[in-house]
Amino acid sequence: MSRRNIRLIIAYEGTGYSGWQRQSRDATIQGTIEHSLSIMTRSSVTLHGAGRTDAGVHALAMTANFLTDSSIPCNGFQNGLNAMLPADIRIRQTDEFPPDFHSRFNATGKSYRYDIFTGKVQLPTERRYAAHFPCKLNIDKIKLCLKLIEGTHDFSSFEGSGSRDTSLTSGRGAVRTLFQTCFTPSLHKKETWSFHFTGDGFLRHMVRNLVGTFIEVGIEKKSIDDFNTILQKQDRNLAGPTAPAHGLILEKVFYEPMQ
Amino acid sequence: MSRRNIRLIIAYEGTGYSGWQRQSRDATIQGTIEHSLSIMTRSSVTLHGAGRTDAGVHALAMTANFLTDSSIPCNGFQNGLNAMLPADIRIRQTDEFPPDFHSRFNATGKSYRYDIFTGKVQLPTERRYAAHFPCKLNIDKIKLCLKLIEGTHDFSSFEGSGSRDTSLTSGRGAVRTLFQTCFTPSLHKKETWSFHFTGDGFLRHMVRNLVGTFIEVGIEKKSIDDFNTILQKQDRNLAGPTAPAHGLILEKVFYEPMQ
Repeated sequence: MSRRNIRLIIAYEGTGYSGWQRQSRDATIQGTIEHSLSIMTRSSVTLHGAGRTDAGVHALAMTANFLTDSSIPCNGFQNGLNAMLPADIRIRQTDEFPPDFHSRFNATGKSYRYDIFTGKVQLPTERRYAAHFPCKLNIDKIKLCLKLIEGTHDFSSFEGSGSRDTSLTSGRGAVRTLFQTCFTPSLHKKETWSFHFTGDGFLRHMVRNLVGTFIEVGIEKKSIDDFNTILQKQDRNLAGPTAPAHGLILEKVFYEPMQ
Repeated sequence: MSRRNIRLIIAYEGTGYSGWQRQSRDATIQGTIEHSLSIMTRSSVTLHGAGRTDAGVHALAMTANFLTDSSIPCNGFQNGLNAMLPADIRIRQTDEFPPDFHSRFNATGKSYRYDIFTGKVQLPTERRYAAHFPCKLNIDKIKLCLKLIEGTHDFSSFEGSGSRDTSLTSGRGAVRTLFQTCFTPSLHKKETWSFHFTGDGFLRHMVRNLVGTFIEVGIEKKSIDDFNTILQKQDRNLAGPTAPAHGLILEKVFYEPMQ
């Protein structure tokens, strides 16, 4: 008899965690949920996330699946986990999937958003969710740079050191395809802008390194030509600084229809 | 020579504080700002707030003034305080006022907002700023009750125990005038609603007791007639429970033009 395969859709505030991936010493999202699942099912549970997020990065809808012999119904998992987990991790949805479904290997894409606040004084209630760049930005130049990264590119210049998120990307090195990008003002928060990135996969620190470089273009420390050169050279020493983790949020993980 | 009179406009996240008012033992907004001002000016400073907020209540724009012999310019106070204060308190604006200006006695009104989330699973990033009432509400009945409290009423039924905020209200007992109220869906957050109250003054716990009672009308535990009776009877034992502090935010303090 095959084990049941349960997929969770998870929101979290990353502020208090050392990222998604289980670690022996520090609190992580994966480790915290696995711990609760193991108590609920009375057996060791391994949770397969759609990817990793860095320490301090948030998620609106991370996906993760686990195999279990438990007969707990899906809504029992959702309610039980939400009762056990700390309030900064919430299970938004729980569904049963075929045995061969895997949150990472079956993912066809992800959307990330990166929020920045450009005003002088950031509201206390927004300080955890938007990076503070109190400067005047040349919006048009940022938008032109965003167009340059759409499509399929080798993003080596924007790859952080460390191991790769291998979803759908094994053998592809640092080549990723960005389906859509944009840079939009917030409709309800003054002087707040959002970068949006949807792609088939993302390298470690890729969004944060892109944003750090876009900001340098925005303040005209770098030109659009400089940006294009950085992208072409595939040299990670050329890009701008890594933007802070707390501005980044994983918004959605995409699967083929029916998943 | 008269001392300078400086008014601050202050935003704060109340989560980590025992309210606005200075206390000898616990961290408060007033105490924290006074401490920084005393260091900056090298003399004891008393900050006069436009009112008090309870433990856990937030503010977008609390006002407070202090008298000083210091020659620090207004933007020096703003930048210095924002450098010294913790990130959950921010000084949004600093202006010099005539010597007789007083944040509380000159206030002509205040606006409060109370946010509720009515869905099943609240996002971690919103848990500090909206109270969670996972229930179906009869919106029309809530709106009708809000109309009943507009105008001038004795709000004794909704007054919490403890001392009164006396701005403009000495000798008026529990009589307050609400200029405008409304109940609106959030434009950008699903299943989130805001109560808005603008009035000449508010009793202790008044907004939270009103909201707690509105929720009981919304879930049809109380009728509109019940609500009207509660308002008329001026008996604080009749109202619904006090809604949680963290849904409440002081949005604005009003003054005569030129202030």
